[in-house]
Amino acid sequence: MKLFNLLFSFFLIATSVLAQSPTPALLPYPQSVVLRSGFFRLTNTFSIGVVSPTPDTLLLGAANRMQQRLNQRTSLYFNQEQVLAGKSSGTESLVITVAKSTLPEIKTVESYTLTVGDKAILLNAPTTLGALHGLETLLQLVQADTSGFYLPQVQIIDAPRFVWRGFMMDVARHFISIDALKRTIDAMSAVKMNVLHLHLSDDEGFRVESLIFPRLHKAGSNGQYYTQPQIHELVAYAHDRGIIIVPEFDLPGHSRSWFAGYPELASAPGPYKPGPRFDIDRSKPVNMMAMMQLINTAATPTIDPTKEQTYQFLDKLLAEMVSLFPAPYLHIGADENNGVAWKQNPTIEAFMVQNNLKDTHALQNYFIRRIYALAKKYNRTMLAWEEAFGPELPPDVGVQIWKPALAGPVVSAQTITDKGNPVIISRGFYLDYFLPAHVHYSNDAIPSATLPALWGGEAALWSELVDETTVDGRAWPRAAAIAERFWSPASFTDVDDLYRRLFVISNQLEGNGLNHRLNSDRLLRQLANGQAIDRLKAVSDVLTPVKGYKRLMVQMGKPVGATYQRSPFNQLADLLNPDSEAAYEFRQLVKSYLQQKNGDTEIRLRQQLRIWQQAPSAIRPLLTQAPALKPLVTHAIRLSSAAQALLLVLDNPTEANKASALDTIKKARTASDEVEIAIADELEAVVSGTLKARPVSYSMF
Amino acid sequence: MKLFNLLFSFFLIATSVLAQSPTPALLPYPQSVVLRSGFFRLTNTFSIGVVSPTPDTLLLGAANRMQQRLNQRTSLYFNQEQVLAGKSSGTESLVITVAKSTLPEIKTVESYTLTVGDKAILLNAPTTLGALHGLETLLQLVQADTSGFYLPQVQIIDAPRFVWRGFMMDVARHFISIDALKRTIDAMSAVKMNVLHLHLSDDEGFRVESLIFPRLHKAGSNGQYYTQPQIHELVAYAHDRGIIIVPEFDLPGHSRSWFAGYPELASAPGPYKPGPRFDIDRSKPVNMMAMMQLINTAATPTIDPTKEQTYQFLDKLLAEMVSLFPAPYLHIGADENNGVAWKQNPTIEAFMVQNNLKDTHALQNYFIRRIYALAKKYNRTMLAWEEAFGPELPPDVGVQIWKPALAGPVVSAQTITDKGNPVIISRGFYLDYFLPAHVHYSNDAIPSATLPALWGGEAALWSELVDETTVDGRAWPRAAAIAERFWSPASFTDVDDLYRRLFVISNQLEGNGLNHRLNSDRLLRQLANGQAIDRLKAVSDVLTPVKGYKRLMVQMGKPVGATYQRSPFNQLADLLNPDSEAAYEFRQLVKSYLQQKNGDTEIRLRQQLRIWQQAPSAIRPLLTQAPALKPLVTHAIRLSSAAQALLLVLDNPTEANKASALDTIKKARTASDEVEIAIADELEAVVSGTLKARPVSYSMF
Repeated sequence: MKLFNLLFSFFLIATSVLAQSPTPALLPYPQSVVLRSGFFRLTNTFSIGVVSPTPDTLLLGAANRMQQRLNQRTSLYFNQEQVLAGKSSGTESLVITVAKSTLPEIKTVESYTLTVGDKAILLNAPTTLGALHGLETLLQLVQADTSGFYLPQVQIIDAPRFVWRGFMMDVARHFISIDALKRTIDAMSAVKMNVLHLHLSDDEGFRVESLIFPRLHKAGSNGQYYTQPQIHELVAYAHDRGIIIVPEFDLPGHSRSWFAGYPELASAPGPYKPGPRFDIDRSKPVNMMAMMQLINTAATPTIDPTKEQTYQFLDKLLAEMVSLFPAPYLHIGADENNGVAWKQNPTIEAFMVQNNLKDTHALQNYFIRRIYALAKKYNRTMLAWEEAFGPELPPDVGVQIWKPALAGPVVSAQTITDKGNPVIISRGFYLDYFLPAHVHYSNDAIPSATLPALWGGEAALWSELVDETTVDGRAWPRAAAIAERFWSPASFTDVDDLYRRLFVISNQLEGNGLNHRLNSDRLLRQLANGQAIDRLKAVSDVLTPVKGYKRLMVQMGKPVGATYQRSPFNQLADLLNPDSEAAYEFRQLVKSYLQQKNGDTEIRLRQQLRIWQQAPSAIRPLLTQAPALKPLVTHAIRLSSAAQALLLVLDNPTEANKASALDTIKKARTASDEVEIAIADELEAVVSGTLKARPVSYSMF
Repeated sequence: MKLFNLLFSFFLIATSVLAQSPTPALLPYPQSVVLRSGFFRLTNTFSIGVVSPTPDTLLLGAANRMQQRLNQRTSLYFNQEQVLAGKSSGTESLVITVAKSTLPEIKTVESYTLTVGDKAILLNAPTTLGALHGLETLLQLVQADTSGFYLPQVQIIDAPRFVWRGFMMDVARHFISIDALKRTIDAMSAVKMNVLHLHLSDDEGFRVESLIFPRLHKAGSNGQYYTQPQIHELVAYAHDRGIIIVPEFDLPGHSRSWFAGYPELASAPGPYKPGPRFDIDRSKPVNMMAMMQLINTAATPTIDPTKEQTYQFLDKLLAEMVSLFPAPYLHIGADENNGVAWKQNPTIEAFMVQNNLKDTHALQNYFIRRIYALAKKYNRTMLAWEEAFGPELPPDVGVQIWKPALAGPVVSAQTITDKGNPVIISRGFYLDYFLPAHVHYSNDAIPSATLPALWGGEAALWSELVDETTVDGRAWPRAAAIAERFWSPASFTDVDDLYRRLFVISNQLEGNGLNHRLNSDRLLRQLANGQAIDRLKAVSDVLTPVKGYKRLMVQMGKPVGATYQRSPFNQLADLLNPDSEAAYEFRQLVKSYLQQKNGDTEIRLRQQLRIWQQAPSAIRPLLTQAPALKPLVTHAIRLSSAAQALLLVLDNPTEANKASALDTIKKARTASDEVEIAIADELEAVVSGTLKARPVSYSMF
């Protein structure tokens, strides 16, 4: 049914539509922005000139893509069909000048200056990479009014805070298609990220075609892997957008999938097939204690570091893999190896005694040094997770810190840089925790001190609970907030302004091809069994998935749970974004209500509360054809009671009414079906009169 | 703004939500369906067994995909992780039995019988292809009620009407990505189509990588072509879903792109670059007469059929191309060659005299016979457009008829089959005419008589006005109506029932990955510059693009129009689907209103009219940030006046009120910005009391 959903939906106060701020939403925000009065108006005579000392295909490609995106945004059908090399007369609408043509790499200067006047736009950059960033800023400046599209006159000077602004995508737990990776790359470049770190192998899968050891992908991927032509295609696609791809092959643990085809590599006899690291007892609920127990004591598939054949194998494999991934970095994982599998193998025990390796940590160091030698052989800078860090680690190995404090003692960035190792920070940037953007934005794992060896950080998306349909929404728009943390000065801490800009950028990313919101609609319509979803969105828009590891624990406990390769992610929790735009707007509304009661804001507040109050009766009829909507109805009913109680408080603010309102709100906080409400603090504030600051940490279990 | 759009949208009458019919929407509808009382309930113990005389990877793949799609629909997390070969105990929930394992090809038996009982489902088919079709029917049977998902008990016996049920996609005028083609293949298999005909070359581009003649794709595609690994990937993807891919390389005309790299092939000297066939005078509006003039008299890039080197070139090229496309068919185009370029070349004229070819048609026949010999050499059945038909055409060449009557004398299927040539019908199945589905459904180009040589037909989508973002919506769901015409008995002619089922299937196709509706939302949100779109949809949902060639004429006239490779398709007309679900529902509403006035239907009618009446005031505020919405506002205002006049008629049905209502409706019919209203007849019916039948033909210019 499409026809009747909009009934009466027009008695709207115009202001509600105009709330979107007219000031340009720049994200990441540049170092310096000086807005001037006046505009540069976009017309179909808009033209682009490129000036570079040498023919610069990277810059030309970017200029042409930018021209097409601008055309897509404005429908102006520019007269200039294509931007051509060495053709600038200096009189074009936009003149891009680079002093030096550069290719994507870390530690290249990335600064640029962008000047928008009334007649012309000048983009100057010392390097091609700087110009690419400037073009993205330019697109973010585009505004519209009744008479058309324009850019505000402005002078922007910009450069990044960190040289390494990465996104780590786990394509092993669930396979992520090349097409989804391309969408991710487009979004990364739009927010000035420059490193796509692919977690290419884990217990669940080995995802790259190997011609030398074909059983790696044939036996180890359930048929889900990237062919070598696809890898070439992806690397070139990223390269064109100023992004390098860093491959990770996780060893010595997290390697079950390797052994499906090559059991001789394992420290315990096979047979193996790709699958989860632990054999979980699914007869009882999985909880933190059970998981910690397994993580610390279970013997999990681990490579045998004592055999020379292991290193001969890895030597041949790396020779092949570095030919696919030209960037000079190789990530070898080295995380979460508890050594139990090694202890259980007498031959390995004997090797340790013989080589006087006092414990399995020492043996892992031995393994790492051997891989380090291979990385050197292939001119790759080695990267590893923080478990690899220690006095014996060569100082040129990059260390990626990730452990949350709850995992016990963790290594700080400072400690690592003090020893001289480069650091990449992913601690506090795990997107798979379902935390709202501001939590990552306020991440305290980044030291305030300037540390030369601190390269930067990576947003990380582990894919136990992610698939092709949900990946865009699990990554975006949140990753853009992390991108700003990596690019913009540390002094930027205004969370409300972050969200204001984040949701504007979210729209631009959608226009740019990202499906984070559309796939959410797709899943909701499926839950509704094809029925209209707008009345459902009135509730689902203010719900979020439960945070931390809560959802993972539940899913791991299922007989054939969602953590399996072939299971669908089509529950209510799967389609919800950890950042609710509606919740943000409701928070703004409550704020202004608290500032100036009884104004227009109270009317709007009451209208919104009435919608929620009536939601269950509006949703229930859909249930008769859509049993999967039950979880949503449960939350709708709780929210409805809270809204009703609040309306009563607005009518008659007695202590009794306030108390019962707070009680219903408390009930509405209850998480169920791995979903929770995102506006409980705001509802409480209507009663208490004071709005709590957004929490920056949440319980993980 | 997401928060406030739903204001008051809940005072809805439950019935409006329940209008979707509970009877299964089978499309294409099977030959025989005997519904029984009772259900087969789906639970997580649902299991699948496969019985085949020989291991059948095609069938296993299909069974596993079906299991995953069922899991995606129901979220049941089936206990059976994977369907395995030769494992059937005969006691599974679903037992699939094929008598003979077959691979995708034309003229294989495709029948199946599907029996749903209360405890078990039996799918029996003489061939693998039949079983694949049965699995799609099974998925369409899935229903839901408050207690869960089920299939109705039913006995289905099914077989196709025609052996050739194709979809022709033009990937030359605008490049369509592999990913979009895969989505098309998924949708095709869901509605039992079995031939994907790719129009791989035309004036605007040569889209396949050639290693033997690399300048074909390098100079002829503006960088937009399929690599050979991508072709292999696509062919395999289609094969797994029971679909063959038939390549078309259009010659001797429509070949400008070939000459960019190999001008020596052309009948006029170069240089050439890929681009539109005609050099259109864009200084004045393009109309039908101007186009007919060009089509009949313009010298357009055409291959030189008199040089032996031409055939040596084609021999080598076809050897390479047939190795990419294993299906035993080769389409060589042969359409729209007016011979003018040949007449202008003295050498060619001389050749004609010398070989006693009395006119350019005779020369084209000569060319076709030469290509025919090459096709034979590579064991390919040759196919060509209807222009190739004539007494001299070898009887085993398949003829694809396409010309609309307005193009002058056309060849009928009967005429061709009488001569013994196979026929494929695309006349009346051109999706790029923006005609609603029922027009194609009522296509009279299909003879009622049973003709053995009538293989079937193809829906055809030419891509002058189609790109990556709009292609899904330009093809679907309409192509499903054509698929039913090719599969189901000719006796099926109930258009209302077609639409009822079409919109249900449309939802399933979306769940299956198609973006026809989501990309439309994406574009509308872009037009709205990121603002909420639901109030806009109240109007846009009842608008459609103008029909026939009207839009093409306008776009061709633009200085840098949308028919250019790089221009965006992001106008209102681009996001509108020729089949409006809202218009269908409004028609149903008006029907029941006319049958039983003053009932609940009048209330609903008034509610809907009020929405349209208020639409302009609801939409205008968005204009201040979204100038691109002006075309939508224009239509909203006209629709608003019509709605207001109708409400007046309902209140006070005087002749004067009726007359002025009819007048405002007439004004609302006015097409503007290549968009028109889809509910004018229904609005008029409220006044006149009689609802016109849907037109089956529309003016094309």
